Amino acid sequence: MAVRSLDKPRPPELSGDRLTTDAAALVNDPDIDVVVELIGGIEPAGGLIVEALKAGKPVVTANKELLASAGGELSEVAAAVGLDLLYEASVAGAIPLIRPLRESLAGERIHRVMGIVNGTTNYILTRMSEDGVDYAAALAEAQNLGYAESDPTADVEGHDDSAKAAILASIAFGQDVVTGDVYREGITAVSPPDIAFARQLGYEIKLLAVAERVDEGGGRGRAEGEPLIAVRVHPAMVPRTHPLASVRDSFNAVFIEGEAVGELMLYGRGAGGRPTASAVLGDLIDAAHNLRAGGGGRAAVRARAHVHPIDQLRAQYYISIDVLDRPGVLAAVAAVFGEHQVSIRSMEQVGLGDEARLVFVTHTAVERDVQATLGGLARLDAVERVGGLLRVVGAEAEAG
Amino acid sequence: MAVRSLDKPRPPELSGDRLTTDAAALVNDPDIDVVVELIGGIEPAGGLIVEALKAGKPVVTANKELLASAGGELSEVAAAVGLDLLYEASVAGAIPLIRPLRESLAGERIHRVMGIVNGTTNYILTRMSEDGVDYAAALAEAQNLGYAESDPTADVEGHDDSAKAAILASIAFGQDVVTGDVYREGITAVSPPDIAFARQLGYEIKLLAVAERVDEGGGRGRAEGEPLIAVRVHPAMVPRTHPLASVRDSFNAVFIEGEAVGELMLYGRGAGGRPTASAVLGDLIDAAHNLRAGGGGRAAVRARAHVHPIDQLRAQYYISIDVLDRPGVLAAVAAVFGEHQVSIRSMEQVGLGDEARLVFVTHTAVERDVQATLGGLARLDAVERVGGLLRVVGAEAEAG
Repeated sequence: MAVRSLDKPRPPELSGDRLTTDAAALVNDPDIDVVVELIGGIEPAGGLIVEALKAGKPVVTANKELLASAGGELSEVAAAVGLDLLYEASVAGAIPLIRPLRESLAGERIHRVMGIVNGTTNYILTRMSEDGVDYAAALAEAQNLGYAESDPTADVEGHDDSAKAAILASIAFGQDVVTGDVYREGITAVSPPDIAFARQLGYEIKLLAVAERVDEGGGRGRAEGEPLIAVRVHPAMVPRTHPLASVRDSFNAVFIEGEAVGELMLYGRGAGGRPTASAVLGDLIDAAHNLRAGGGGRAAVRARAHVHPIDQLRAQYYISIDVLDRPGVLAAVAAVFGEHQVSIRSMEQVGLGDEARLVFVTHTAVERDVQATLGGLARLDAVERVGGLLRVVGAEAEAG
Repeated sequence: MAVRSLDKPRPPELSGDRLTTDAAALVNDPDIDVVVELIGGIEPAGGLIVEALKAGKPVVTANKELLASAGGELSEVAAAVGLDLLYEASVAGAIPLIRPLRESLAGERIHRVMGIVNGTTNYILTRMSEDGVDYAAALAEAQNLGYAESDPTADVEGHDDSAKAAILASIAFGQDVVTGDVYREGITAVSPPDIAFARQLGYEIKLLAVAERVDEGGGRGRAEGEPLIAVRVHPAMVPRTHPLASVRDSFNAVFIEGEAVGELMLYGRGAGGRPTASAVLGDLIDAAHNLRAGGGGRAAVRARAHVHPIDQLRAQYYISIDVLDRPGVLAAVAAVFGEHQVSIRSMEQVGLGDEARLVFVTHTAVERDVQATLGGLARLDAVERVGGLLRVVGAEAEAG
């Protein structure tokens, strides 16, 4: 085992000659059959994985940052040498996810994958939803429990989810998707009134990583028949009857919609040392089995994905704006919606006077029109603040 | 493709020379690499699978009856020839379940597997619970929708679940468990008042297939360290906060508790032609991949399981009895519980006079004591009928 420091106490104790600080020597050691990479980060992890594969050793890794930036290249190396590159632990910890997507659903045309894949933000949203605490208080609680880091940016701004979304999209659609392809919004703008109002309408707000196949629309240079893939991370309104709505606290779940399989959900612990270790161990046994049997090497060369831009997303939207409570305001606001062809499904005024807020849910609309609407609303004198924008997912949302 | 009748219309159309009625010739045809068995039943399916494996062909099957009666022998044959015997479609249709249990959780010590693995009975129980209809009406509706057969015995008496429980137990614990090892109760005795009362107490009633590792207790001839396995199918009270409680309609789900992995749930469509086909196709691709790569052959020789007898089950119990509403009845009833060391956690009287019913939930008790209590209660003059007995599962139940 290669480690940074030989002196750090490690239960269970390993004899000294099992430890080294020289990772490069280890991946080239002919006595070693399989390499497990748990360093994290891009380098030296990436270089060591390539070296290990080229030295004939299958690799198990949990490194989501690396896979989400260079997964395509690493898969190519693994495919070239015909060896396993396994990474079940990289997304949703111990939930069997990568293997089912890659093997059990190998014959399936997958339409969409939607996941709650960050336990910290799900814990925060659960506390806000069920106990009415605000974001700052819920975050502080998550930090006290050790769910959130002292700098929570990677979780709450959706960076962690973006890497996982890229990995899920790559596997589900057989295309190379990287973090940079993922549209991203975090949960810091989600407010208790938005959550309360969403609940009143029959929805829970969840931070979702969504990857879906889109049949028509942009994608420069896309040939006939090549898939167009939308990948995004944002807080979404999920109908209470949807299985994802009941995924609470720090649990993770991934909901898969396929042509023949219908709807699937895989649920469990997304993080923590022991669940992650369980996933790594499952991969390790698989790699060892395949190596001995001469099999494995399911890694495939993937073409760069054609990514559907977020401004072409078609969805229903929840929009809240703080307004001055005076005659004529609604007419002015409605005119802005109409100007941009955004059709209103329901409107409700919450509060009065200085506290007046208008809450809208639209019919299916196109993102760029909704964004233009928000811009127009912000320019109205009577509008004090354009607040939450939430996309509705579930049965009603259409992508196209 | 071997079929019973060459004349039956089959969309999509297959050219005549692709069809035969001679299945035995087909499994020995050297031009055929992989055999898919979808005949069902014990023979000729079992013999054909053995022949195919011995002829060097990996086999994919969805045949739960066969696997639950001769899975051990078939695995032995597959292990001897080093070929795949894959059967993802045999339990919970398209839900990736067998492969995650066998591969992703290969390094995991599994404590318990609990599944809603029959869509028909889950549909019936959902209708009874949510709409208050009685068993007969819910069954008729399930039959109209094509969920239930005109003879619903295999579903409603738990036979289908028993076969699936045996398969799940075999995979989860690496032991050979057959249908005959499974304690079985169906749903025909579940009454609307039991469901209503369970809901009032915060529970849903679900037909569960449960397989769990029991650390102490009987098991004749069991050596130190060999697992003792309890396998049973019965309606159970599931706390509303448990993920299985929200599995509605004809959906299936399997909840897995493991040492490191914690809690996992796999959810989806359990039946239907297309989900089943998706699972078969995933296995077929896997078998073909492994055959080409020279891998596969994960089948292992399994020892016959030591089965923990139901009368040693430790659980909380829900018991309802119809009584004559007169003084002294409760004292007589309570005395019977006390005599058999069954401790009462809560008691409620529902109705008055001729309609009086007493509903009890016990503390954790041993099944044989509870059965003795039921016998004693039935012998009391004031007891008109001993009604529902339901076992409570979830966090509170203890097995030991």
